[in-house]
Amino acid sequence: MKRTDFDAVAERVRNWGRWGPEDQRGTLNHIGPEVLKAASETVLSGKLFSLGLNFDSNGPQLGARRFNPKLYPIDLFTPLNPERPAFVYADDVIHMPLQAATQWDALSHVHYDGLLYNGCKACDVLSPRGAAKLGVEHMANPGIMSRGVLLDIARLKGVDALPTEHAITPDDLDAACAAQGVQPKAGDILLVRTGHIRRFTIEGDRAAFNGHQPGLHHACAEWVHDRSLAAVCADNLAVEIMGAGRRDSEVPLPFHMLCLRDMGLPLGEMFNLEALAADCAQDGRYAFLLAASPLAFTNAVGSPVNPLVLK
Amino acid sequence: MKRTDFDAVAERVRNWGRWGPEDQRGTLNHIGPEVLKAASETVLSGKLFSLGLNFDSNGPQLGARRFNPKLYPIDLFTPLNPERPAFVYADDVIHMPLQAATQWDALSHVHYDGLLYNGCKACDVLSPRGAAKLGVEHMANPGIMSRGVLLDIARLKGVDALPTEHAITPDDLDAACAAQGVQPKAGDILLVRTGHIRRFTIEGDRAAFNGHQPGLHHACAEWVHDRSLAAVCADNLAVEIMGAGRRDSEVPLPFHMLCLRDMGLPLGEMFNLEALAADCAQDGRYAFLLAASPLAFTNAVGSPVNPLVLK
Amino acid sequence: MKRTDFDAVAERVRNWGRWGPEDQRGTLNHIGPEVLKAASETVLSGKLFSLGLNFDSNGPQLGARRFNPKLYPIDLFTPLNPERPAFVYADDVIHMPLQAATQWDALSHVHYDGLLYNGCKACDVLSPRGAAKLGVEHMANPGIMSRGVLLDIARLKGVDALPTEHAITPDDLDAACAAQGVQPKAGDILLVRTGHIRRFTIEGDRAAFNGHQPGLHHACAEWVHDRSLAAVCADNLAVEIMGAGRRDSEVPLPFHMLCLRDMGLPLGEMFNLEALAADCAQDGRYAFLLAASPLAFTNAVGSPVNPLVLK
Amino acid sequence: MKRTDFDAVAERVRNWGRWGPEDQRGTLNHIGPEVLKAASETVLSGKLFSLGLNFDSNGPQLGARRFNPKLYPIDLFTPLNPERPAFVYADDVIHMPLQAATQWDALSHVHYDGLLYNGCKACDVLSPRGAAKLGVEHMANPGIMSRGVLLDIARLKGVDALPTEHAITPDDLDAACAAQGVQPKAGDILLVRTGHIRRFTIEGDRAAFNGHQPGLHHACAEWVHDRSLAAVCADNLAVEIMGAGRRDSEVPLPFHMLCLRDMGLPLGEMFNLEALAADCAQDGRYAFLLAASPLAFTNAVGSPVNPLVLK
Repeated sequence: MKRTDFDAVAERVRNWGRWGPEDQRGTLNHIGPEVLKAASETVLSGKLFSLGLNFDSNGPQLGARRFNPKLYPIDLFTPLNPERPAFVYADDVIHMPLQAATQWDALSHVHYDGLLYNGCKACDVLSPRGAAKLGVEHMANPGIMSRGVLLDIARLKGVDALPTEHAITPDDLDAACAAQGVQPKAGDILLVRTGHIRRFTIEGDRAAFNGHQPGLHHACAEWVHDRSLAAVCADNLAVEIMGAGRRDSEVPLPFHMLCLRDMGLPLGEMFNLEALAADCAQDGRYAFLLAASPLAFTNAVGSPVNPLVLK
Repeated sequence: MKRTDFDAVAERVRNWGRWGPEDQRGTLNHIGPEVLKAASETVLSGKLFSLGLNFDSNGPQLGARRFNPKLYPIDLFTPLNPERPAFVYADDVIHMPLQAATQWDALSHVHYDGLLYNGCKACDVLSPRGAAKLGVEHMANPGIMSRGVLLDIARLKGVDALPTEHAITPDDLDAACAAQGVQPKAGDILLVRTGHIRRFTIEGDRAAFNGHQPGLHHACAEWVHDRSLAAVCADNLAVEIMGAGRRDSEVPLPFHMLCLRDMGLPLGEMFNLEALAADCAQDGRYAFLLAASPLAFTNAVGSPVNPLVLK
Repeated sequence: MKRTDFDAVAERVRNWGRWGPEDQRGTLNHIGPEVLKAASETVLSGKLFSLGLNFDSNGPQLGARRFNPKLYPIDLFTPLNPERPAFVYADDVIHMPLQAATQWDALSHVHYDGLLYNGCKACDVLSPRGAAKLGVEHMANPGIMSRGVLLDIARLKGVDALPTEHAITPDDLDAACAAQGVQPKAGDILLVRTGHIRRFTIEGDRAAFNGHQPGLHHACAEWVHDRSLAAVCADNLAVEIMGAGRRDSEVPLPFHMLCLRDMGLPLGEMFNLEALAADCAQDGRYAFLLAASPLAFTNAVGSPVNPLVLK
Repeated sequence: MKRTDFDAVAERVRNWGRWGPEDQRGTLNHIGPEVLKAASETVLSGKLFSLGLNFDSNGPQLGARRFNPKLYPIDLFTPLNPERPAFVYADDVIHMPLQAATQWDALSHVHYDGLLYNGCKACDVLSPRGAAKLGVEHMANPGIMSRGVLLDIARLKGVDALPTEHAITPDDLDAACAAQGVQPKAGDILLVRTGHIRRFTIEGDRAAFNGHQPGLHHACAEWVHDRSLAAVCADNLAVEIMGAGRRDSEVPLPFHMLCLRDMGLPLGEMFNLEALAADCAQDGRYAFLLAASPLAFTNAVGSPVNPLVLK
């Protein structure tokens, strides 16, 4: 991708100032009471789904910087009162990257040209104490709930998982909307299924899951922008395509940059959409209530999440 | 409290075997599709509330064992591709007790007489690798969503916060139901407001927040059991009363023991109910949709949570 | 190895009770003032060597349980006094296994048949709070200094590194003593060079370093016992041989068991002996002053160390 | 203290360029083979002392940023081979500030006016990945050993511990040299006893230990410089005096700045000198062999240490 082409798109989708100079929530501002009321009205069957991966040493991380969570039980078999030794408790401590498994990227997670969303200067905002602005705590209060819409691109293409080189285009999204009979609206949260997570959850191939992978083409940023969506989530590592030839692009992770930095739109990664997608295929309903609140880690650039869907 | 009196209550509320010998979810089994459907129908205004505290070094913890979260930003200003230095990202690592602020206790958090919920032997289940059974991951899949009911005992008594020695009785709960015009039903999650959290959030007195405090009398366990509630949460440290004279009890934290170990009922602690309670007082509606899913930390005895309420 | 054969050796080398029923230092008791005085007299050239590996993310660990150290800088560029912003400081936090690189095993690190060194019951001593007895803090006060003796088996065999299947025998040790003109005495610390560490430090092959490797045959335990040595260290992962066929042994890590549990003799692992060995070969002097004190981590089963040799 | 006065001293003691433009070891360069040979010759009695505090939750730290070490035992009672369950091991993980108890400050620990020792630009060197130059690993290879000299100022003044407002002057140091019959020489490491550590180790008053405290007046920097000492250590929090009125100084922690940044001289803090001092008083010998090597934490600004003295 050429930088000049990227810049043209970025200019069209940029939301800086749209919700005031001090705004820290970006497109989450699209979620108002009407959207939430409408979201609750999508609930018909009372079926509940969790889209989160487990957080443990068998998680999807391969490496030493983004490692899998380390759990340290403490106080096992410790009496609450030494005089009543029969009554005991246990606690535990976690050590983990906030980007270890199913998670939200906060608006402070990436930037370019020294500026974050809303024009915040990165050098003023980011420090070893964290993100003084645009931290994930601003996405957590109020937390993230809305109408969710699933676009199941893998099913559209008739495969369990898209080929690793498949870049999902706006046309793919439109075709899925048509095939599934659903239309994302302002304030909705878009869930895009590539099937890629099966390479980890079913095939158990961590390396494949972290390697080249299907995902959104950056052109989808405009599609998302035009519909005033609140957030985009997917079942792969980074929502967008990551693969061969990407290293040559003049813009690394362009969809990240357009969403997080220009639009102020949060990205949800490693959402496990398998069970939900099967149910949607069965009942033909691809819109539902989605509750996927990050934890309010002050000054953090991300948060693990256990997204819930109620249909 | 006498151990013999405690044992009599424990026997009456014990749910062991009720959902099979392998059950790991206890009273969350009360939440079925009808409950969830009904929960969604409580939504009228589309107002959204977060009940979670922030997770940071200014949290409610005083001590060194249960300490406040430590956030370590890494990769600040790190280029995604060294050849494109303008495009950068940041990650972060968290080190925290899973019991640091707003959180769920898993069924494996406490036990007595060597047995956990459902008769699991503690010595077989708990080890330095965590809770092999009854870990919080079982409460996370599917995660916790249901109808929530707020009983605002502080408001019932006409105070901002209950006196620290106030033990909330079943009569208090009944009086609040009557005054607020709400009746908890099977599968509901009970939120009890003592106002105690204001001692931390408003007065900023961490020591007072961790000291003697109002909360549920253990007699409320039978009240909860009789109504087949799914979980109980409160705005204090431990849901139940903790205070003067409690050290003399033959049973430490009796409500914890009855709920987590005998009933298999999860407890939610340090839920910030202030804004929600004000809204309920205004519109007179004390039932709502509650989404409060723990993260699926495998083998852990608790999880932080950012509970969301949609009214 | 047959368990019965092992037990016969274990009985011969067992030091339980030798230094009293409460002893926590085992063979470190062999190091007295005379030994230390003699050690200082070995210093002739004033040459100083460090035998420690670096502690960082590029360390020898492959895995997720024994991982490489994680360093978190904090307070970078933080003013000591906000009114004097020109004067700043930085701190850092480490998260690491105490067994990550060059390190001591404490006597509490391994045991068998439910008993630790000196007959301590493992179930009474070891808990999620650590080792209530035989922790590394007892090896740290007073810390470890003595005469060190290098036996360079790789050089004896004329190779850079012993083949991975080479089990060093008492005969090898005797031959090295003869070839090098040195005789280990009571209270000495034995350093055994296999050259194996080069597979990590020079060849950069972490997998090879963690795989099959040369090391001491368990028969050397008697050799060490007969000479009243204070400790044994080597340049491999576990001092003793680890390799093909070891899984069939009825006793895993027999040298560890005999040394740590029966003799009460600390083991030093991943000591980088390359520069020291080259110098010893050059001047023909294989005895020197060794200062290799563990840190006093209370109740820990090991400690990183930066061993110093002064010749 | 006036900034202009400070600058005059700084200019006199500055060692930048003295050991080349790439030097990372500062005054440790004063320690050569002759110094080390002479150090070994001070050993007469073979008595060994550890000067390190224990590393655990009862350590000297009061706060949440510089907290006491957290030890997490893992793999307790884990079989080395599942088929041989009688043979088990345990490991542990530590989470701690490198500045938690007895420790070395690396040359990268503090700076002023944007420059570190040897004129390194702080903005180029310090980042969330640590200190790219002047990290403690450079002090660790070869590690720190030399002749140590104790100047016992508390004993000189006839007190167990100096009053908290006592600033140790060059005259005090001279008087101690005369009284104790010892003269620090080039390459020596100076240990200064204030007795302050007793407020923690004996009186158990953590707050007092962290409060106002006696220590070196910054004028001692020239005294140290004139004698070409290699390092200075003390039994208080920061070697230098910290107390009332210091907040008004135009230069916070001036001795730190002069030593670490201008001279390139490492500081050792919280060295427990009590037992050593008693012995020196008894035999009248205040010079000895000191082995106090930091661990080679790559890019870290400090390291815990267990200093050993052999007399």
